[in-house]
Amino acid sequence: MRYDNATVRRQDRLLSEERALELLREGEYGVLSMASAEGGYGVPINYAVEGDTIYLHCALEGRKLRAIANDQRVSFCVVGQKRIVPEQFTTEFESVIAAGRARLVEQDAERRHALRLIVEKYAPTHLEEGLKAIERSAHRTGVVAIEVDCLSGKCKRV
Amino acid sequence: MRYDNATVRRQDRLLSEERALELLREGEYGVLSMASAEGGYGVPINYAVEGDTIYLHCALEGRKLRAIANDQRVSFCVVGQKRIVPEQFTTEFESVIAAGRARLVEQDAERRHALRLIVEKYAPTHLEEGLKAIERSAHRTGVVAIEVDCLSGKCKRV
Repeated sequence: MRYDNATVRRQDRLLSEERALELLREGEYGVLSMASAEGGYGVPINYAVEGDTIYLHCALEGRKLRAIANDQRVSFCVVGQKRIVPEQFTTEFESVIAAGRARLVEQDAERRHALRLIVEKYAPTHLEEGLKAIERSAHRTGVVAIEVDCLSGKCKRV
Repeated sequence: MRYDNATVRRQDRLLSEERALELLREGEYGVLSMASAEGGYGVPINYAVEGDTIYLHCALEGRKLRAIANDQRVSFCVVGQKRIVPEQFTTEFESVIAAGRARLVEQDAERRHALRLIVEKYAPTHLEEGLKAIERSAHRTGVVAIEVDCLSGKCKRV
């Protein structure tokens, strides 16, 4: 993926590429923003990153999949540390926004691999049971892959 | 606004209307999801709520305003407590999603009122200086109002 902050208006508030990638990989959750047939639609979601791909799991049907079918171009936002600084009327924050194309993962091997990545991220201390849970539920779990074209990162520290 | 969870697939995970409204009003930030001409686009943002209206401030030009001009139907997501529960391969969470129509606030009085609401929310201990800051910056600050049609709320507790 390309780390590109050219379209960030406030060039004085860029996050380093290293920290942006770290936040994208390690964030606890992100918000997936889609252009549905009913306008903008965003949902918070757990995920895992491998290379340029963000994986997330979902039901086999639902509004997310319909929105992605409507427009595969999505945006994925992860927010790191936030701290309100009332005396300066501002908030310290760091955030990344990934832009890419979403697709439903059709191949069984890739779907299981993605679910394993998610278990490894969120339940590293319970890997073995997690892999068993994947075996039990993989047939009824959808996986979406977002191929990230472009990542941007902002921060504000006061 | 209508509190409507009819489209939430998991009816066993609904948030009460009271808690949903509280989370919407008191959340530290939300993610605004828009249907831009380039697909889904979402950004984290500070905000204040009054009645059925969510107010947020922005620059007088930029990608947010272009996206809203493209499609005024937006979604605004606030996430409350999150806690990863690795032994159960899940996450406790609560979240609300507001759907509505966004407009740029044109009227000066409404814009100043919205900025005051934001200062009252984020800097209640520094209200007087905040109001002075509004006087200094109101002419170069954009305000967007989202008129919320529908709010839904989900939670998962294990």
